[in-house]
Parts: sequence; C-alpha cells; structure tokens
Amino acid sequence: MGGTTAQPGALDDVITWRDGHIVAIDQTALPHELRLLDITTVDGLVGAIVRLAVRGAPVLGVAGALGVALAVRQAEREGWDAVNLRREVAAAAAVIPRGAAAVEAAANAVRDDTIAVSRQISERGARYLLESAGDVPLKIHTHCNTGTLACLGWGTALGVIRALHGRRALAHVIVDETRPLLQGARLTCWELGQLGIEHYLACDGAAPFMISQGMADAVVVGADRVAANGDVANKIGTYSLALAARQAGIPFVVAIPESTFDGATARGDLIPLEQRPADEITHVLGVPAAPAGTRALNYAFDVTPAELVTAIVTESRLIFPAEPGSPARG
Amino acid sequence: MGGTTAQPGALDDVITWRDGHIVAIDQTALPHELRLLDITTVDGLVGAIVRLAVRGAPVLGVAGALGVALAVRQAEREGWDAVNLRREVAAAAAVIPRGAAAVEAAANAVRDDTIAVSRQISERGARYLLESAGDVPLKIHTHCNTGTLACLGWGTALGVIRALHGRRALAHVIVDETRPLLQGARLTCWELGQLGIEHYLACDGAAPFMISQGMADAVVVGADRVAANGDVANKIGTYSLALAARQAGIPFVVAIPESTFDGATARGDLIPLEQRPADEITHVLGVPAAPAGTRALNYAFDVTPAELVTAIVTESRLIFPAEPGSPARG
Repeated sequence: MGGTTAQPGALDDVITWRDGHIVAIDQTALPHELRLLDITTVDGLVGAIVRLAVRGAPVLGVAGALGVALAVRQAEREGWDAVNLRREVAAAAAVIPRGAAAVEAAANAVRDDTIAVSRQISERGARYLLESAGDVPLKIHTHCNTGTLACLGWGTALGVIRALHGRRALAHVIVDETRPLLQGARLTCWELGQLGIEHYLACDGAAPFMISQGMADAVVVGADRVAANGDVANKIGTYSLALAARQAGIPFVVAIPESTFDGATARGDLIPLEQRPADEITHVLGVPAAPAGTRALNYAFDVTPAELVTAIVTESRLIFPAEPGSPARG
Repeated sequence: MGGTTAQPGALDDVITWRDGHIVAIDQTALPHELRLLDITTVDGLVGAIVRLAVRGAPVLGVAGALGVALAVRQAEREGWDAVNLRREVAAAAAVIPRGAAAVEAAANAVRDDTIAVSRQISERGARYLLESAGDVPLKIHTHCNTGTLACLGWGTALGVIRALHGRRALAHVIVDETRPLLQGARLTCWELGQLGIEHYLACDGAAPFMISQGMADAVVVGADRVAANGDVANKIGTYSLALAARQAGIPFVVAIPESTFDGATARGDLIPLEQRPADEITHVLGVPAAPAGTRALNYAFDVTPAELVTAIVTESRLIFPAEPGSPARG
C-alpha cells in the first residue's frame, strides 16, 4: 500500500476503484494533509480499516464491496481460491463466478447506490427538520463525522445539514470534537470548511450544557448500527447528546441508510460493547496526556435507547422510535 | 518568576510561602514534570493563575491570601501604596496595617484552615456515600481535578474518594480526561497514582454512557461557585454527568468548602458564562487538531441546576438542593 498527496477538493476520492485497485483518502492524515492511499491487497485494506484511515459505516460498506473486487484481482494474481466474505459484500460477491470485471462493476454499483441513498436521506432529513425543529434558520448540533468522508455523496447527518444549507435554512453547525480520535475536529470541520458552511467546534463535555442553553434547535447524528427496536449504536458521546436533547425539548434525529438497521439484533443491550486501545485515551494526537502506565477505558461506541430517539431518517422513510405506536412516514 | 524542578511526592508544595515569596507547582507541566515556580511579584501570580499553572477554587483562595502577603512585600520593595484586593483575601488584607509579617501569618492561617476544611469535607462526604450509594466497595466517577493540587490537604471530591479508600470502601475511580485542558488525565491520574488508588481514565463523551451501564455507584465533583438556590457552576462537562446520574438513579454529589457558596447570586443563570481562548479547543496539548482558521466555542464551566444535585457536602453540613424542603444535616 503506497501513498501519494492530492489537492484539496478531491472528495470524490474518499474511496474509489482505479487502475485495478482501491484509492482512498487516508482519514488519519486529515486535516493536515489530503493523502491518497493506493490499496492493492486485502491485507492492506483491512489494515487501513483497523487504523481508521478508511472509516464511516457507509464507506465501510463500499470498502467491503470494493474489497471483493480487490480480492478477486489478488486471487488471480497470487493463485488463491478462497476469500472470506461478509454480509455487506454480498452484492459484489454474488458475481464472483463471472470474473473480476463483473465484481468491479458490482462494487461500483454499490458505490453509486450509496451516493444516491445519501442524497435521499439528506433531503428527507432536511424536510423533516423544517417541519418540526423550530424557526429557520436552524442551529444544528452534530457529532463525529458523517459526511462525504464517512458515507460518500452528501453523507447522512452531515448530508441533512448540507441540504438545510442548500435551502438557506441553516444558521450554523456546532461540531463536537469527538474524542478520542477527534473525527469532528479533524474531518467534519474540514468538510464544512470545504462546503463554506458556518460552524463552531466545541469539546464533547460541553455539548449537553450548550444544548441546555438553547444553542441548538436539533441534534442530528449518524449511526453504526440500529437494533430492531430502534436502539442506536453510534460513536461514543452520542448518548449524552440524546439525554441533553430530551431535557432541552429538541429533536434528536438519526440519519442512516436502511442498511444500517440490524433486524437480527432485537435490542441495543444485545450489541457487544467494543473497546479500542487504551492509548487512544492516554494520548492525544500521539502526545501523552496522562502519567505513564495509566489505565483507560475506551468504548468505541455507545447505545442510545429508542425512547430518546425522536426520529430516524432513511432513504425511504421516517420512523419515530420514542413513539412505538407511531407509523413510519415516507 | 523562575522555575526549578522538584522530586515527585512534594504535594506540600502545591502553594506555599517560603523565603519571602510564593512557591507553587506549575500545574501545566504535570504529569510530565513536577516543576516549582518561584513567584515573587503580583503580576507573576496573576500570570500563573491566567495560564492555569495555579488553579482550583480553594487553591486560588490561598493564592489570593498569599498574594496579599506578596503585594505587601513588593509594595515595600517598590514603594507602592495601593493594592487591589478581592473578597477572598479579606482575612489577610485586614492585617495589612500591621505589616508584612502579620500578613504572611494571616495568609498561612488561611492555608492551614483550607487544609483542615478539606479533611472535614472528605470525611463527611465518605460517610454520606457509605450511607446512601449502594454496596461497598463503591465505584466513583469524577471530573477535572479536585485533589491536593486544586484544594490543598486531601482536596474536595478527590478527598471524599481518598477517605473512602482509607476506609477500604472504594472499588475504583473513573476519571474524565476533562477537555480542553485535560486536568483529569494530567493531574487527577497523577494524584491517584501517587496515592495508590485504582483508577481508569475515560474520555468526557463516554462518561454519561458508562454511568448508564452501571459503571459508577455515585458521581462526586467539586465546584467553582454555588448559587444561593443550589445551582452549581463547575468545570465544563459537569452538567452532562448530573443528567446521566439522575437517569441512572445514582447520587450526584458536590463536595465544596462553605466559602464556595455565593449567597449574593440567587440562581445559576445569573452567573456570567466565561469563554476561554478558542485555541484550547482547536489544539490539543499544543498540537493542532482542526483545520487552520476553525472557530470554536470554549465555555470554561457549566451550570448544573439544583434539581439535579443530590447532595452538597461541606466542612460543616450536608445539603439536599433537589429537595428544597429538606433540612441540612451535620
């Protein structure tokens, strides 16, 4: 896996297929450098995902599909005959028997569909907020990164924000820095800057208080996984925003593609809690913050119970998990 | 103002009077270096407070008193005849007419009293938690730094934790890193390490979720100022812990000296919200995290409404702000 440096503005290169391999933005290098990775092996792709150089649930779906294309190329080159496939790559995997070109076409179709879906989520979310979240222009609080870097196209939560901006209905965005890996500070501020959308960075601990002070008309976030009952697993820090939104009486909105629903998991408490390495907490941007030897707890995501979720917006519907009897709307 | 390096364990030197000037630990250098500042002028003291080298509400009270002693010395040396005094330095200021030695004695009396008060808060808080917070050993969640570095002696919230540890009634402490200045990671983990108390660091955004998962039996924090109605101003991030504690059904306890009550301020919403420099948010430990030019909102503290405060523990009483009719207990 090699690296080259690209010019800003190249958001089409978040993840793509070019010259028989995957090209992706190294999201760990942002915002200081827009570095493109040339990923030519499955191991290289897995490594890029583990260190979060490639990240964001919808982008990971595309990465899975493109990974199948990569595996087929690599298999032909290196003489493999077996590849481990995950559910997310089924669309591409189904055409493996038809050869590398078919897999690449299927993978690219997944990519195109992801982009189209994000636009539908964005527009539906903006319409919903304009109907329900107070007087325009709206002040929106968001968390982590859910834009083009995470989802391709317009993104999910950040796509909703972009759609509001396009309708001249957005006052500004408050962006949580999103410790430990600072995706809000590093990635979301960079994307919003590219789009010319007014935004303010704040630290995660400040968010609930700022919401209590009327500094947001709505909280809009993405999700990693949504259980069948509407419980939402998302980047650590999301639960505190949902608690604060309910206390302040503003909507807490989750913007996701339908593929993020995990119908096989009945409730959020059945989702295993993933811990990431302690040194992401004891260090910040590689600099030690705590005394050597300090132990840390580093939960990658939290689970927000459905009763705190005002609405889930997808490409095809609106769902109201806090009101179980309420029908979905288109 | 010069600097010298001391050996670990020298917590008596948080702030003290020695050889006609103030000696204080530079809390911005911890945990990497235990550096002592020799502060010989009022300007030097103010500068040390502004950059948070000297910090913590009770320590600032002592700094105010010692600052009067410093001002009198400096006034004699430089021929001043006027000094601006704040309420907190009244005890030392009252004896200014009696000369430098009397002011130094009064300032040292403030220091000794602060240490004694912290021990009383610590023991009362531990007794209260053992009566009310579930089965021992207790798991305690805390925020920022409220130990010897902030308060001298045992501290306030961290003093309560130390008293529980002394009674073998403490399982462990969860410490918020406390962005933006990371006093939890840098200072509280260092103090707990010195004391041999088991602790885990976590990022601020994770705290409410961890509390929701039963990882704490109580939240114990200090305060910068408490309004007459029991609203609590404390380091940004505190409000989110109080919301989470109520949701989880565990006590949210504020440990303070009586001097932290501000009877002249009726309610928390009358306390002006202080903003600190944006670069504390856009940078972490001096390293840029966000794109150049990113704007940030940096509230130094938040205000937790009395209705979320289970108990306030002082050197002389227990108060229950969430139950306005409830009498204070000794």
